[in-house]
Amino acid sequence: MSIGVIATLKVQDGKAAEFEAVFKGLAAEVRANEPGNKLYQVFKARKEANTYVVMEIYEDQSALETHGKSDHFKAAGPKLGPTMAGRPDILYLDNI
Amino acid sequence: MSIGVIATLKVQDGKAAEFEAVFKGLAAEVRANEPGNKLYQVFKARKEANTYVVMEIYEDQSALETHGKSDHFKAAGPKLGPTMAGRPDILYLDNI
Repeated sequence: MSIGVIATLKVQDGKAAEFEAVFKGLAAEVRANEPGNKLYQVFKARKEANTYVVMEIYEDQSALETHGKSDHFKAAGPKLGPTMAGRPDILYLDNI
Repeated sequence: MSIGVIATLKVQDGKAAEFEAVFKGLAAEVRANEPGNKLYQVFKARKEANTYVVMEIYEDQSALETHGKSDHFKAAGPKLGPTMAGRPDILYLDNI
């Protein structure tokens, strides 16, 4: 059963371009290196300022864990941290 | 630029099976009849009781409007209404 993740990220004023650049790179690495990842797409909220949402789908729990342990994911953290306005909100979902 | 939608739906106690059946049918109709829809996947939240989340991606604003005007979407409303515990929360997103 596939697993969904919705990550909601608040970015500091003036840091949107930096955030987007890091996240586009991360998304490309996820797609290139994680066969168990089925979707990793980053969006900007229309109505909420400085708010981004990542839609993620993994084929199973193992693929989700592979993502969390990956070098590219771990490397993105220190680059994203200075752009963010708080901790990310992560919602875990099971496909019905 | 593609458009994302995240719909969060709260279902009444005891109505999950009925809700899921209607939504699986709706998802099948979206996939079969909306070429501008790129994702329409229904998930159950792991930690929040009675909470479902629909991840949707459309290729453009026109495809999103086509979805909202479709016969299958309009027909699902009256079937879903009696299963729900409140109004859906709909978040509109632009792909970066």
